[in-house]
Amino acid sequence: MASWLQIPKNSPFSLANIPFGIISSANIPSRVAAIAIGDYALNLSAFAAAGGFSQLPVIQPHLNVFSQPTLNAFAALGRPVHRQVREFIQNVFRADTPFSQALKDNAALQKEALLPLSEVTNHVPMQIGDYTDFYAGLNHAYNVGVLFRGPDNALQPNYKHLPVGYHGRASSVVASGTAIHRPNGQILANPAANPKVPTFSPCKRLDIELELAAFVSRPNNLGTPVSIDEAEDHIFGLVLMNDWSARDIQAWEYVPLGPFNAKNFATTITPWVVLMDALEPFRTAGLEPQNRDSLLPYLREKQAKNIYDIALEVEVTNDGGKPTTIARTNAKNLLFSFPQMLAHHTITGCNMSPGDLLGSGTISGTDPQSQGSLLEQTNGKNPIKLADGSERTFLEDGDTVVLRGNAGSEGSYVGFGDCVGTILPAVKLNL
Amino acid sequence: MASWLQIPKNSPFSLANIPFGIISSANIPSRVAAIAIGDYALNLSAFAAAGGFSQLPVIQPHLNVFSQPTLNAFAALGRPVHRQVREFIQNVFRADTPFSQALKDNAALQKEALLPLSEVTNHVPMQIGDYTDFYAGLNHAYNVGVLFRGPDNALQPNYKHLPVGYHGRASSVVASGTAIHRPNGQILANPAANPKVPTFSPCKRLDIELELAAFVSRPNNLGTPVSIDEAEDHIFGLVLMNDWSARDIQAWEYVPLGPFNAKNFATTITPWVVLMDALEPFRTAGLEPQNRDSLLPYLREKQAKNIYDIALEVEVTNDGGKPTTIARTNAKNLLFSFPQMLAHHTITGCNMSPGDLLGSGTISGTDPQSQGSLLEQTNGKNPIKLADGSERTFLEDGDTVVLRGNAGSEGSYVGFGDCVGTILPAVKLNL
Repeated sequence: MASWLQIPKNSPFSLANIPFGIISSANIPSRVAAIAIGDYALNLSAFAAAGGFSQLPVIQPHLNVFSQPTLNAFAALGRPVHRQVREFIQNVFRADTPFSQALKDNAALQKEALLPLSEVTNHVPMQIGDYTDFYAGLNHAYNVGVLFRGPDNALQPNYKHLPVGYHGRASSVVASGTAIHRPNGQILANPAANPKVPTFSPCKRLDIELELAAFVSRPNNLGTPVSIDEAEDHIFGLVLMNDWSARDIQAWEYVPLGPFNAKNFATTITPWVVLMDALEPFRTAGLEPQNRDSLLPYLREKQAKNIYDIALEVEVTNDGGKPTTIARTNAKNLLFSFPQMLAHHTITGCNMSPGDLLGSGTISGTDPQSQGSLLEQTNGKNPIKLADGSERTFLEDGDTVVLRGNAGSEGSYVGFGDCVGTILPAVKLNL
Repeated sequence: MASWLQIPKNSPFSLANIPFGIISSANIPSRVAAIAIGDYALNLSAFAAAGGFSQLPVIQPHLNVFSQPTLNAFAALGRPVHRQVREFIQNVFRADTPFSQALKDNAALQKEALLPLSEVTNHVPMQIGDYTDFYAGLNHAYNVGVLFRGPDNALQPNYKHLPVGYHGRASSVVASGTAIHRPNGQILANPAANPKVPTFSPCKRLDIELELAAFVSRPNNLGTPVSIDEAEDHIFGLVLMNDWSARDIQAWEYVPLGPFNAKNFATTITPWVVLMDALEPFRTAGLEPQNRDSLLPYLREKQAKNIYDIALEVEVTNDGGKPTTIARTNAKNLLFSFPQMLAHHTITGCNMSPGDLLGSGTISGTDPQSQGSLLEQTNGKNPIKLADGSERTFLEDGDTVVLRGNAGSEGSYVGFGDCVGTILPAVKLNL
């Protein structure tokens, strides 16, 4: 597919992608829906108002969804509508289709609606009702389990039978680019002391977690599970996610009810939602596909390929210095798929709403350079070297972390764009 | 305080209370704000429209808050406004104040706005952004800890240093009266087997948890903790809560990230929010007030009395039979206060919004008849007897559970009303 618009070959937003997001700008004070393509965002509110969708009947009664400050209403229209809208927009940008007149030959509309990405502000694209984080990265769970319990008991007995998950904090999910204050909290300066007495301190073991996350599109009523066969059609699309983690706060607080303050200070996501249909060509089997046969029927998928082949990387840079790629891995390092997570989440009858967010859990390969957290890579003891010569066991103030993910190949990447966060010093409190 | 309105002496909604809620009825299809008094609800939208608040200048610019489908906007006005509105409404209903003309002498408005509680439907009173459940019931934590780890290690080392908590599921918080389907899920029929292999089953160990919960009124920005001194003024009011728990699902799933499906199928709350000012006369010290002196400064309250003296009870009835009160206890059985929970929750910079819900954790006394969960009372082994002669270790289909809570004494109760839920059979799934 070629476009009349010049799209850089290394852009994550090729014509094959067309991810949806929410933008504002100096000239668009109210948030509106947009898609990203190459170095541009297409303001869908303006495009719709100018009659851009006049040849797409299915969206005509719903054009107002593009003028809302979140994608919830668009997502709720369901996958067949998302599919047609995405394909229509692809046609608008293709060099070889008659639809190009909608934008290609309309300089005034281009000027109004096709905005350089550098001039728009991205926002969290959906109103997130509830955010759930899973733990489906088998290698990560194993690596962390080895650190805490040794290799023989690394995985808990439940691990391969269900996608382990916990409820996260929705309010502190922020869009890429938001600076992150190092959290304060209770840590155990001397874990060997008896009795154990915590101190109050800025977190000293601030970590990243490289994750994918899925936005829910279709609601289900309380008491009505989403079946495994229908689950994929309840998912709107995926984003990249950095589940920032305060390991020292976590180690002290997490028994017996799980992580809480260690995670609730911030979770960063990419602002462009890559639709399930855009990822369709990259379906693959996840880890241990034979495990599928031993699952209880409510988790058994008809087809085995429900994970995606997406190259992932983590880059760290201090204070404008030289970037270092500290991890390269792939999104296929998951034991459970998002449809399995959704089917498990709702098997009790738990109700989901459009905009609910499901995190995959940290995605790691097996060797250290493919691990999606510093806890795994360094255990706080074995520092990694950055390109500027400095060392890291955990993040330092001024570090900027960038997650990237791309499926496909140059010229037709289906990617997420950068998931960026810079660490600010802890807030000084007058206690 | 005497009222011109006849208020039953045993009503939880005496003139000393004035709790706020959201109602609808056959004649009020759109949800509106109301207060409860005796056997009536006062429709505040209709009352405001009729000029009922004309002598209360502070609320004049904000009268629209009473016509909204949640109390979020009213809560966000802040405690000084809640206080004046509540006191004004008390004056409207007092026999001895000139304000009585606003309603007492206006038969038409009484007919329009003063509705029998039996004719209104109550709703979850706030749009809940995030729901957090704490574990501050010291006796409950100890009792459960004894069951799992024995008396010497019953409490984890962190327990008395911070209010342990976890994120819960906001979407499935329902109003009193909503029937609850017994959840399906993975349980370990034979925990001694090796390897451990789960089965799919309706929950067989369905339990209750007697809790108080607080609604947040004032927001704080991401990165800005709420100080312990300001925390109480960020709380709108309290409700009773039944945190239904599937103990067998929980036992299998909860390592290492905490309860998930065991709790996400439903959480029932009373629909009337009792304001902090209404509870002011019932302040008392919680458990182990000396523990306060050993807390880190961010949790140390200026005054020790931040817990409330509220008599609590749990009643179980099967299928319209004879009710049995299975537990009587008091809300002062907490180690941490809601202000401490809020200060801890936000010390990392976590942002709260109006409508966020904080659960106290299960409230139990020390003897079995004062324990707020069946897990503690029976451990699944030692059944309790109901008045109809049947026995219970956990809940059976058709059981109706009622939680009640009242502060004060007959004629001037400050109470929550009934927190009711009936257990329906598990949904049959075609797997």
